[in-house]
Amino acid sequence: MEPVNVVGVGMTPFGILEDSIIELAQKAAIEALIDSCTIESPIDHLIVGTQNPEEFTGQGHLSTLLADYVGVVPAGATRVETGPSSGSSAFESAVALVGAGMADLVLVIGVEKMSQVPRRTASKILARMLSYENEILYGATPTALAALITRRYMHDFGLTRDELSLIPVKAHRNGAKNPLAHFQKEVTVEKVSNSPIIADPLRLYDCCATSDGAAAAVVASNKAVQEYGLSDAAIKVLGVGHGTDYIAVQHRSLLTSLNATRIAAKNAFSMAGVRPDNIDVCELHDAFSILELLNMEDIGLFEKGQAITAVKDGTTEVSGAIPVNPTGGLKARGHPTGATGVAQIRDIVLQLRGMAPNDLQTADPHIGLTHNIGGFGNNMVVTILSNI
Amino acid sequence: MEPVNVVGVGMTPFGILEDSIIELAQKAAIEALIDSCTIESPIDHLIVGTQNPEEFTGQGHLSTLLADYVGVVPAGATRVETGPSSGSSAFESAVALVGAGMADLVLVIGVEKMSQVPRRTASKILARMLSYENEILYGATPTALAALITRRYMHDFGLTRDELSLIPVKAHRNGAKNPLAHFQKEVTVEKVSNSPIIADPLRLYDCCATSDGAAAAVVASNKAVQEYGLSDAAIKVLGVGHGTDYIAVQHRSLLTSLNATRIAAKNAFSMAGVRPDNIDVCELHDAFSILELLNMEDIGLFEKGQAITAVKDGTTEVSGAIPVNPTGGLKARGHPTGATGVAQIRDIVLQLRGMAPNDLQTADPHIGLTHNIGGFGNNMVVTILSNI
Repeated sequence: MEPVNVVGVGMTPFGILEDSIIELAQKAAIEALIDSCTIESPIDHLIVGTQNPEEFTGQGHLSTLLADYVGVVPAGATRVETGPSSGSSAFESAVALVGAGMADLVLVIGVEKMSQVPRRTASKILARMLSYENEILYGATPTALAALITRRYMHDFGLTRDELSLIPVKAHRNGAKNPLAHFQKEVTVEKVSNSPIIADPLRLYDCCATSDGAAAAVVASNKAVQEYGLSDAAIKVLGVGHGTDYIAVQHRSLLTSLNATRIAAKNAFSMAGVRPDNIDVCELHDAFSILELLNMEDIGLFEKGQAITAVKDGTTEVSGAIPVNPTGGLKARGHPTGATGVAQIRDIVLQLRGMAPNDLQTADPHIGLTHNIGGFGNNMVVTILSNI
Repeated sequence: MEPVNVVGVGMTPFGILEDSIIELAQKAAIEALIDSCTIESPIDHLIVGTQNPEEFTGQGHLSTLLADYVGVVPAGATRVETGPSSGSSAFESAVALVGAGMADLVLVIGVEKMSQVPRRTASKILARMLSYENEILYGATPTALAALITRRYMHDFGLTRDELSLIPVKAHRNGAKNPLAHFQKEVTVEKVSNSPIIADPLRLYDCCATSDGAAAAVVASNKAVQEYGLSDAAIKVLGVGHGTDYIAVQHRSLLTSLNATRIAAKNAFSMAGVRPDNIDVCELHDAFSILELLNMEDIGLFEKGQAITAVKDGTTEVSGAIPVNPTGGLKARGHPTGATGVAQIRDIVLQLRGMAPNDLQTADPHIGLTHNIGGFGNNMVVTILSNI
């Protein structure tokens, strides 16, 4: 495989925004092209990661449309979709094109505009990721299933309500310092633990909101890095892993572990030639608080049932040994679904450049990891990046 | 780049079918897995090419769902969309994954179920591929734009109505022998030229119908070909090219040539190391009769304005020097949009194996080409396959 690099990144603010889905994509893309100094170089391919722009906004054909509106015609243009992990899968597709030598410069855009439809409609669109015949038919929702997992995890490992609240508290503490985050205010354990119940035991602050936003990255071959003099900015892509599980939660072997994450992480580590204890910083999918714990354990950062200890002793803080979601995660940064995976890449690239905003920069990281979920506990993508 | 092979193909009948979108995908996939003798081998990745299942059927998340329902969990699973060329782009993504060494066995499924919504709704969904502000707002439809191109081509190159009718006549003559084609009956020049006007000068038989259907292919590395003993069935992927153009037809440099095809073909030929005159058989996008002429010329099979001469003298017949759409093309085989690109790959693979049905086998072909369109005259994918 040809070596693959990330040479530029861009991101809009996440939140409830005035911009159209096209304007969001344009802003993130132009920032990434300027950041990578490739705005005048020929882009070989555009990959757009977006979950469901047709139903969220009425606008489809985004790959064809954005190739024109972002100014990369006559580049090939492809839209990639894996539900909420669409941005990560778009990045994976870009890595494959460059890794195969089929492209030298690929622009990746992750984008979603979720606030154009009423919140109830957005929830219905998102709930379609469940199994209709096994789950939706019986009234299950993603939040209800996350609650089921949380309850089982509490039972098996003794996790308490206040311990779980430490996850969103950390997310909001980091998000408060992230100028692009949807939620830039701190919350307390008391506030989280007493917020309205959404699906017992999950409360309001355990569940991420819906957001608008876009992020972009420029992926380049070594040839392009040399030709355009981009070596100073180049972050190496060491590995990408992707895995699935049975769509209905009831068909899976365990409630408290997500096998698709284990598969994706195993494949990414194998491709990268590194181990979980080599990871210096990571951005994980925490759409529900419990998922951050499960992911840390399934990726192999901590033993089963032990992740909460790491949260409690500060190991996963910005200043800790393994900072997790230093930019606020899905909970505080926001979760415009198709954009999230590319935003994670962008945030890890900033960490590896030593350029994270405010006090969010972690101590001299060399290897970073992103993890994203594309169904309910399904369709996981793990990426490993390095600055050495 | 690692060498890439197609080791198995499958396809459902195309037409107005009872099967759900999931059942269609399953049938094509299982046939391809059996055809490739990989049904018990570990599939590394599933790529699903589909244009708009959310709006055509209400069913989304097809990559995640089909990974389970086709039985390839825990493989990575990705949906790829480029409008009507989604199947071709899905194939391109599979080639990139194998070409990069990121996967050894990739299952590609192209599927669309278009008859679940009323025809008028289907037309509205399809018309979204145009530019809203430059075209839709003024009442343009894909058919109207194809008519505009046809009129200009007639003016510039002296094409007559009866000459144009030779294209659907050939499509239906071939389709009549294709047991999976949507339309298995012949038509005459007189019938085509006198069929109802849809958008002058285009008539009913100049325009492809909407169909249901699925096609699948198994893409493999040389390692997998050797490991699973698949060398007898292996067809080599020599090249893939992909290109775009400005989305609004009025912004393009010419009406009678589609630059996105020229770019895609140039890239595919360059990657494959072959020339247009090396092509022995091809499947081209002929959703409107005029497009088959434009595509033959833009790919470089014939000089500008000369393609109709080749049609008239039998060069593009099954028995001719460069057979074009020997299985009926989009016009007669049908056009379940996401499925078409994979069906084209399947049909060329059968040709290169010498196993095309009935009298549709062309004379000892060694290099085949597929071409697909993903917007109106936009987002083209060209693939070149070989049996030597």
